[in-house]
Amino acid sequence: MKKTEQLYEGKAKKVFNTEDPNLLIVSYKDDATAFNGQKKGTINQKGIINNQMSNFLMQIIEKDGVPTHFVEEINERETVVKRVEIIPLEVIVRNISAGSFAKRYGVDEGIVFEQPTVEFSYKNDDLGDPLMSPLHAIALKLLTQDEMDKITDYALRVNKILKEFWVQRGITLVDFKIEFGKTVDGTVILADEISPDTCRLWDTETGEKLDKDRFRRDLGGVEDAYFEVMRRLRENDK
Amino acid sequence: MKKTEQLYEGKAKKVFNTEDPNLLIVSYKDDATAFNGQKKGTINQKGIINNQMSNFLMQIIEKDGVPTHFVEEINERETVVKRVEIIPLEVIVRNISAGSFAKRYGVDEGIVFEQPTVEFSYKNDDLGDPLMSPLHAIALKLLTQDEMDKITDYALRVNKILKEFWVQRGITLVDFKIEFGKTVDGTVILADEISPDTCRLWDTETGEKLDKDRFRRDLGGVEDAYFEVMRRLRENDK
Repeated sequence: MKKTEQLYEGKAKKVFNTEDPNLLIVSYKDDATAFNGQKKGTINQKGIINNQMSNFLMQIIEKDGVPTHFVEEINERETVVKRVEIIPLEVIVRNISAGSFAKRYGVDEGIVFEQPTVEFSYKNDDLGDPLMSPLHAIALKLLTQDEMDKITDYALRVNKILKEFWVQRGITLVDFKIEFGKTVDGTVILADEISPDTCRLWDTETGEKLDKDRFRRDLGGVEDAYFEVMRRLRENDK
Repeated sequence: MKKTEQLYEGKAKKVFNTEDPNLLIVSYKDDATAFNGQKKGTINQKGIINNQMSNFLMQIIEKDGVPTHFVEEINERETVVKRVEIIPLEVIVRNISAGSFAKRYGVDEGIVFEQPTVEFSYKNDDLGDPLMSPLHAIALKLLTQDEMDKITDYALRVNKILKEFWVQRGITLVDFKIEFGKTVDGTVILADEISPDTCRLWDTETGEKLDKDRFRRDLGGVEDAYFEVMRRLRENDK
C-alpha cells in the first residue's frame, strides 16, 4: 500500500489517499496542541507511541465486537485505515471527574462515578467544540437516531474494554475521547485514535498522570509518561 | 392563605413561606434581567402578566396529565404553589433553532426541527448555567435515572400541549425553559413559571417576536408584546 496525495493535515496526524479508494494511510506526528490549538509543542516520539498504541487497542476492541477503522500498521508512524466520513462529534466517556468536566460544573477532580457518563461535543474549532445533546445532533442532521444509539452503545463497550485492559496494568482509565465514522456502505465504525493524547490515564497506585495533561498543565516528564504507558501496554501482552 | 417570612428573592419573583409547611406564595416582580443578570431593566406589568399566564397554562398542563405546583391564584401578582425542592436543571425544549442554540452551533435562527430537542443546563449562576448531559446530572447525583426519564417525558408532553395551545392563537412556540421540583413525598412536578420570560413565541404570520427577546435584543415594544400574548391567551379561552 502506497501513499498518493495528502488529503488532510490535522494537529497530530496527516492523512493520505492510497491507490485503493476505500483505504487511507494515517501518519502520526510528534506535534502536540492543547486548548483548541492555543498551546503548541512537540512530544518526542509521541507519533510512534500513539500509532502503535492506538493500533494495539483498536485490535483488542475489534476482537471484542466493536468494528474499527484499523487495517494494517505499515511502519512505526503509519497505518492503513478504512476510509470513513467522520461523524462530527467527539464522543467523551468519563469514569471519574477531571478536566473540562470538573471546571465546567465546579466540582473536584477525582469523583468516581457510579456509572460512566457519555457526552458529545460538536467538532468545530471555530465554535470551540461546544457540548451538544444527542437530540441537538439529530436535529442538525449530523447523524440519525439509530446511529446515535449505536455510537453510544459502542462508546460504553469501548469504555468497558479499555478500563479492564488498563486496570490489569496498574492504570486507571479516567476518561477518553473517541470518534466514529461511516464507511462508504454506511457502516458506523470506530475511527481516529486511542492514545495518551485522547485518554486520561492515572497510575492506580500513585495517582500520577500518564497522559497529555502533563503537557497541558506543564507538569514535566511528558515523554516519560508516554513511554511508561507504552511499556505497561506491552508488559502483559494478551 | 397568608405570607409569613420571605424565603427567597430571585430575579423575577419573590417566594414566601405560609402557615402551611407544604405551601408557598410566589409574588411576581416587573424586574427583568438577561444574560445571567448582566442586563437589567423593568417591564411594566410583567409580573401581572407572567403570574396570570403561568397559572392559566399550568392548569391546562395539569389537566393534560403533567402534575404542576399550581394551587391557587390569590391576586394579580401572587399565587399559592406547592413547596418543592427544585431539581437544579433548566429543562429546555426547542422546536426551532434560536438564541443560544443558534449561536453555540453556528447555525441560523428559524431552522424547524423534525423532532423537538430536549437539553439540560445546570442551574448555577457562578458557572453560567452550563449545558449538562443527562448522564452528567445523574453522575453528580442531581437526580436519579428514573427522575431524568420522567422530566424528559414531561417536558416533551408540555411541549406538545403548549405548541397546540399557541398555534390556535396564531403563535409559534419556538422554545421554552421549564423547571421541575420534588414535593416532600418525592413526587416530581412542574414548577417555576411559563411566560414570555421563559418561552420564545413568534407571531405565526409575521414572525414578530412576542417574548423576552424584545428586551434582550433592545427591539422595543416589550410591554406591547407581553400584552399581545396575554390578549391572545384570553382570546379563545377553552
